[in-house]
Amino acid sequence: MSATLTTPQSRTPDLTAVMGEIGRRARAAARVVAQASPAEKADALAAMAEALRAAAPEILAANAEDVTEARSRGATAALIDRLKLDDRRIAAMADGIEVVAALPDPVGAVMDAWTRPNGMRIERVRVPLGVIGVIYESRPNVTADAGALCLKAGNAVILRGGSDSFRSSRAIHAALAEGLRTAELPADAIQLVPTRDRTAVGLMLGGLDGNIDVIVPRGGKDLVARVQTEARVPVFSHLDGNCHVYVDAAADLDMAKTILLNAKLRRTGVCGAAETLLVDRAVAATHLAPLVTMLLDAGCAVRGDAETRTVDPRVTPATEEDWSTEYLDAVIAAKVVDGVAEAIRHINQYGSHHTDAIVTSDPAAAERFLAEVDSAIVLHNASTQFADGGEFGFGAEIGIATGRLHARGPVGVEQLTTFKYRIRGSGQTRP
Amino acid sequence: MSATLTTPQSRTPDLTAVMGEIGRRARAAARVVAQASPAEKADALAAMAEALRAAAPEILAANAEDVTEARSRGATAALIDRLKLDDRRIAAMADGIEVVAALPDPVGAVMDAWTRPNGMRIERVRVPLGVIGVIYESRPNVTADAGALCLKAGNAVILRGGSDSFRSSRAIHAALAEGLRTAELPADAIQLVPTRDRTAVGLMLGGLDGNIDVIVPRGGKDLVARVQTEARVPVFSHLDGNCHVYVDAAADLDMAKTILLNAKLRRTGVCGAAETLLVDRAVAATHLAPLVTMLLDAGCAVRGDAETRTVDPRVTPATEEDWSTEYLDAVIAAKVVDGVAEAIRHINQYGSHHTDAIVTSDPAAAERFLAEVDSAIVLHNASTQFADGGEFGFGAEIGIATGRLHARGPVGVEQLTTFKYRIRGSGQTRP
Repeated sequence: MSATLTTPQSRTPDLTAVMGEIGRRARAAARVVAQASPAEKADALAAMAEALRAAAPEILAANAEDVTEARSRGATAALIDRLKLDDRRIAAMADGIEVVAALPDPVGAVMDAWTRPNGMRIERVRVPLGVIGVIYESRPNVTADAGALCLKAGNAVILRGGSDSFRSSRAIHAALAEGLRTAELPADAIQLVPTRDRTAVGLMLGGLDGNIDVIVPRGGKDLVARVQTEARVPVFSHLDGNCHVYVDAAADLDMAKTILLNAKLRRTGVCGAAETLLVDRAVAATHLAPLVTMLLDAGCAVRGDAETRTVDPRVTPATEEDWSTEYLDAVIAAKVVDGVAEAIRHINQYGSHHTDAIVTSDPAAAERFLAEVDSAIVLHNASTQFADGGEFGFGAEIGIATGRLHARGPVGVEQLTTFKYRIRGSGQTRP
Repeated sequence: MSATLTTPQSRTPDLTAVMGEIGRRARAAARVVAQASPAEKADALAAMAEALRAAAPEILAANAEDVTEARSRGATAALIDRLKLDDRRIAAMADGIEVVAALPDPVGAVMDAWTRPNGMRIERVRVPLGVIGVIYESRPNVTADAGALCLKAGNAVILRGGSDSFRSSRAIHAALAEGLRTAELPADAIQLVPTRDRTAVGLMLGGLDGNIDVIVPRGGKDLVARVQTEARVPVFSHLDGNCHVYVDAAADLDMAKTILLNAKLRRTGVCGAAETLLVDRAVAATHLAPLVTMLLDAGCAVRGDAETRTVDPRVTPATEEDWSTEYLDAVIAAKVVDGVAEAIRHINQYGSHHTDAIVTSDPAAAERFLAEVDSAIVLHNASTQFADGGEFGFGAEIGIATGRLHARGPVGVEQLTTFKYRIRGSGQTRP
């Protein structure tokens, strides 16, 4: 099988033409799936899940080749872990598609409707976005997750998976295409870029002659930063999840400890993990030491300002850079602030507009924090690790967006749609 | 006064620093006006309208200087007409601000709310977009219109008016700033770029170090095309309004004539003006001649396909280019198509996804057209000239957007907002 692989060394002769054709096919398929009924899409998704389960042997064989090649290149254990599939992971992918199939169909919903004095009826109705480009790294499951979510919202999708997972993604994609054909929807609605040539990414970021409406990057900071810098089409993404927990003067210490421990250490590698602890000076004497000691004892490094360093010798000095660092590790920055006002200022200055929490029993402080912190998700007395489409009840998400436009926060099926105005008249003309 | 003007010949020494400072001030002001109450914003708008009326003599004097300079440069009559102010136009600007003041305040509205099984309450709440950059040409009234709309939605705005209207815009802006100060809101919430140096536009398109969230161009195609090509931040705009009227087999001829005449000729220079007539072959024998003759007799040039040319010798041949041309003049392209399916294909291929109408008494044809035409606004039995925020009941608009994301169709105060998620818990952590 590997003989047929296109590698960076054997570049596709005319990649621009190949990608242009993928874009045109995606646009044509998008027009068809935009009009597909909820039942047709649900049938296709069910068939995709079934085909995925049936293709498990082929997928595992392809994946074994990917893993062997990655190992031979000296890939890190973390990369191998993301890359490697087993029966359980394939079953989880298929189950995930069925979860998406069971979600309410967002397309066609009337979001708003009103009648004008001249009798015209105006409706704002939800329609698919069009063609979505998904650029991801070596997590082959994104192939299935993103394909299913985009289809559910009536979109066509162009998937560009990581080079490391090329064979795995191709085997998964074959199952998705089979599901589409079973339901008589165009297989072009979910296309996989058929080359490892990285030039394809650049072409996608250029929008393929207007045939990509939005790009969703899924991967590490280098990938997201490249997409944000180079994309000539809108992007749904977050570069950083520099999330804060602010412990207010009126915080219950036990609740603060529980929330902080969860926000920082439940999983350190997720974008909703807390990266900075802010403690109100008014309760620093009573709250700072227990909070910091708890983290240190749990194996979390703490980088603190001068005041925080006085509570435990294990606290190392924080530099200016620490306030804007997303560690994605068992490390936290900690600082004493003058009440909710300074906490808000600090978060709006150093944060990444992702997810931030206040712990307090003072309703006024909570409301001020919720109103003034300029982030996609703001929480009162709950962990920042709830920053997740599943936890919001969206069923599934393709990522979290920290941009201010269109999609903000978890990007689920509803965020993968747009709207149009449908006006019904009886011969009205404009005076 | 003109001695203090910065012209392209006397470039501001460090424009990058000047514009960077404008961006930082706008961001700081945006944080304040985002938290302003509905009453504070309404008071500021009322004070702005009053200050504008009181400043009429200064505004007219500044405008007279602009007009004199434009004339001396040999400006077209059309430009002079757009540029020239009088008492009536100033009164209309002030009235327009009061209309905006009276609109419902969009900020803080809870768009959606639900409770999770763990008891967390999630709200999706409307918040301002942030900082909006408006780049416009020689219509000084945009200074007042855009300033008022952006403020109503809780945003800060950076206005960059046309060089021709520099003095007029500055005088209008002074009145807006006075209104902000009267209401004790930061004057930096509405800033006017204090130079005619065109380099400022490029700096704005670069986003001023992340301090502009969205750009709205208001002007001719050259301006919009430049903004769409160069902007590194999202843009709300339409380049073309290539709108269609499709007269279906089941169209009532009288209604078709009334709608077509209005859609094409009520005003030919607006983006909602019809530019192409499509007639169903099934009724070409009865409907084509009366429709075409009506337009010709009304002074509208018709460029037709072979079939349309047979009905009147005054019809000139249409070329392939005509199908994608926005004339903005008393000219229309006309073509016979094979029913609603070909009409939809033609519109999706050649149109600009702006506004398109079907005339028919067949509900099935109407529903198909409304569903499958991929435009921001689709109408059944009504004129395309309704493509306007005022006609939608939005009170005022900053423009029409044909992009698919965030704002689509008329951009009113609601479209100048975004949202965030506000979550209230009682100590919840993620399992």
